[in-house]
Amino acid sequence: MTRPNDSRDNARTTRRHLLRAGAAAGGTMIVAGLSGRDANAASEAIDNLPPNVPEWMKTPGEPMGSQPYGSPSPFEKHVVKNISKNLPQYLSASGRTPLQDLDGTITPNGLFYERHHGGVPAIDPAQHRLMVHGLVDRPLIFTVDDIRRFPSESRIHFLECSGNPTYKKPFGKTASDLVGLLSCAEWTGVPLKLVLQEAGLQPNAKWVVAEGADAAALTRSIPLEKCLDDALLVYSQNGERLRPQQGYPLRLLLPGFEGNMNVKWLRRLHVTSEPAYSREETSKYTDLMPDGVAREFTFYMEAKSIITRPSGGQRLTDRGFHEITGIAWSGRGKISKVEVSVDGGKSWQEAKLQEPILTRALTRFRLPWQWNGQPAVIQSRAIDETGYVQPTLAELIAVRGDNSFYHNNAIWPWQIGADGEVSNALA
Amino acid sequence: MTRPNDSRDNARTTRRHLLRAGAAAGGTMIVAGLSGRDANAASEAIDNLPPNVPEWMKTPGEPMGSQPYGSPSPFEKHVVKNISKNLPQYLSASGRTPLQDLDGTITPNGLFYERHHGGVPAIDPAQHRLMVHGLVDRPLIFTVDDIRRFPSESRIHFLECSGNPTYKKPFGKTASDLVGLLSCAEWTGVPLKLVLQEAGLQPNAKWVVAEGADAAALTRSIPLEKCLDDALLVYSQNGERLRPQQGYPLRLLLPGFEGNMNVKWLRRLHVTSEPAYSREETSKYTDLMPDGVAREFTFYMEAKSIITRPSGGQRLTDRGFHEITGIAWSGRGKISKVEVSVDGGKSWQEAKLQEPILTRALTRFRLPWQWNGQPAVIQSRAIDETGYVQPTLAELIAVRGDNSFYHNNAIWPWQIGADGEVSNALA
Repeated sequence: MTRPNDSRDNARTTRRHLLRAGAAAGGTMIVAGLSGRDANAASEAIDNLPPNVPEWMKTPGEPMGSQPYGSPSPFEKHVVKNISKNLPQYLSASGRTPLQDLDGTITPNGLFYERHHGGVPAIDPAQHRLMVHGLVDRPLIFTVDDIRRFPSESRIHFLECSGNPTYKKPFGKTASDLVGLLSCAEWTGVPLKLVLQEAGLQPNAKWVVAEGADAAALTRSIPLEKCLDDALLVYSQNGERLRPQQGYPLRLLLPGFEGNMNVKWLRRLHVTSEPAYSREETSKYTDLMPDGVAREFTFYMEAKSIITRPSGGQRLTDRGFHEITGIAWSGRGKISKVEVSVDGGKSWQEAKLQEPILTRALTRFRLPWQWNGQPAVIQSRAIDETGYVQPTLAELIAVRGDNSFYHNNAIWPWQIGADGEVSNALA
Repeated sequence: MTRPNDSRDNARTTRRHLLRAGAAAGGTMIVAGLSGRDANAASEAIDNLPPNVPEWMKTPGEPMGSQPYGSPSPFEKHVVKNISKNLPQYLSASGRTPLQDLDGTITPNGLFYERHHGGVPAIDPAQHRLMVHGLVDRPLIFTVDDIRRFPSESRIHFLECSGNPTYKKPFGKTASDLVGLLSCAEWTGVPLKLVLQEAGLQPNAKWVVAEGADAAALTRSIPLEKCLDDALLVYSQNGERLRPQQGYPLRLLLPGFEGNMNVKWLRRLHVTSEPAYSREETSKYTDLMPDGVAREFTFYMEAKSIITRPSGGQRLTDRGFHEITGIAWSGRGKISKVEVSVDGGKSWQEAKLQEPILTRALTRFRLPWQWNGQPAVIQSRAIDETGYVQPTLAELIAVRGDNSFYHNNAIWPWQIGADGEVSNALA
């Protein structure tokens, strides 16, 4: 520990060399541990001295208080929302979560996906109001503070845009390009049923028409059954108050339902006997089927999964051990199983699911894998607690025809080249 | 719906008036629902027109792309880390989570508590190394990418500084002042045991001495048993890579152990047969007991809880229904029960715990409460799965004497005045 500096510099070079040996040996050893094969590697060793002192240990670091609200490392500045360039800004803007750069299941608020129809309103919470009217005994108007007086709940749920991804080329290159209109957070708010009970529902009440306070006045009709089940009026996300992009100061959360129905900047709940047939449930968010009939009110996001590592745009730098990992989710409930194929769909292995497995939340899956350096096609398929199995794109198109745009929950394969480059196998 | 504007303005005034009536009625109705009493309120009604259109609906909102990495609403700019002013910046700097402003259990990364002994180093992840040496068969050095090649896990755990709060006045005013050196996140990393197995532990290995790459070279000795249990080498927090303040690019996570042992900017794991007796386990992070013996290696954070709403610095604006809510946690495992007293500790009621209850994670508790407008003292006590009951401050001091500084997990009561102001009942 007191060896002179010039010796330490020599030692450093040696260590750098052996680091590479160590890493390679590491792969072998891990395989031994996971597969039960004998460990027969890593005979090289580095000397047992402490490592050299890097420059950043020689002077005091950044002082406390320079970031009262923190931000990521400058070395992570490429991890930002993936923003669509060629969509009309005030009709159909979207920013995708960089799924391939994230681990776990919680999406940090700064990277939560966005989808706006009229931009992001700058709402003063003291001025914001929620009105509940229509087929109720007592029409009521609430301030945000009124809503916060109600009993609260916190739950982890995913949110996903129904157009994630489209059915037609060009498909994107990365997991984010394909299904980045997907995020997951811990939400806190008031069960919607308490607020509706407060107003008093009349016998002919069947739907609740929710309206947002954005320039699009985005409006969706929600079946009353959902409103009385697990719907929340949300004011906080991952602990802190909602971000403006997520509906500050108040949004609707309908766990498992397509994203646009989770109305942001919520200002009105109109209780009715019929749906409103608003723009967002007629000209948009419907699909034309082969028989000419439009599929409408396609509320639930069906079971789906995607491998995020390795995934499109990434590169395997070595053969040997790699963990295949990704996320699975279902608007119908819990994920019960995820299967992974590493041979183009010929055979499937069951992945390990990260506990706790929560209903209508992202579930992280993992499978240990040995890459032999040959081209390979890897893909995952999710099965949810209803028994539903995530379909292939061909299976979906066979049923829905050529004109569908929404609710593409197809299995998505990644192609791994001999050079380790990962690309979209369907692009 | 087509009523002229001047009528709508009148209607708006009416609604503003009735909003207050509605809110008051709301309290009554909620109580009816929760207590079984008859609902006998809210006979007033507002008209059934849609609400007036606020200014922010009349023009397009902020366009997509102005925030590739988002930030909170400007109306929430007061919700920042609570930074201690009178601590020596490069020995003992700290920034506390604003617990009283947060809901749920996940702490957003921007508000995660900080505690530094030598400032925050600016580490280039490509240059960072982790060395594992000492009583191992194969000393090894890893890059961050090497560590990311190992099998991974994601888990939600709290982290808490052991000096949270001190035993002596002046005590703080808010929940953050008192116990804000506490946060909770979903962590992703590699089980430490896999990395130690890779190096090969020798028979006399009993401790692992972890060293950080900050200017303090913060060093702590970890019992090998913990390292082979649930310890993680963490690279991601709430989905994204660690923030610099939390140890970017690599930190140790020892679920349930005092914060400083979860070494940030981890650069070295020295496997030994004895602890190092480093500065942070001799001159600091020990407590002088009444008999003159120092309590050392006080790893576990014992069961604890705090009411965050209503809490110090807040104000009840109305009598009637209020939800009492807070957080509970234990380094020993899961929270099994939280009891709340609203009468200065004379009687206790069981609070409802938010599912899922996870081991060594924050658990949100809630209790419906009617405030009658009289002064009251409210407090919570946590019981964990080992049966341990959170003690009072007097009980702690009776056992530990006057010289303890760390591991104060006392029950903390809040005083509510007749004016609704909430203050620290022990300050």
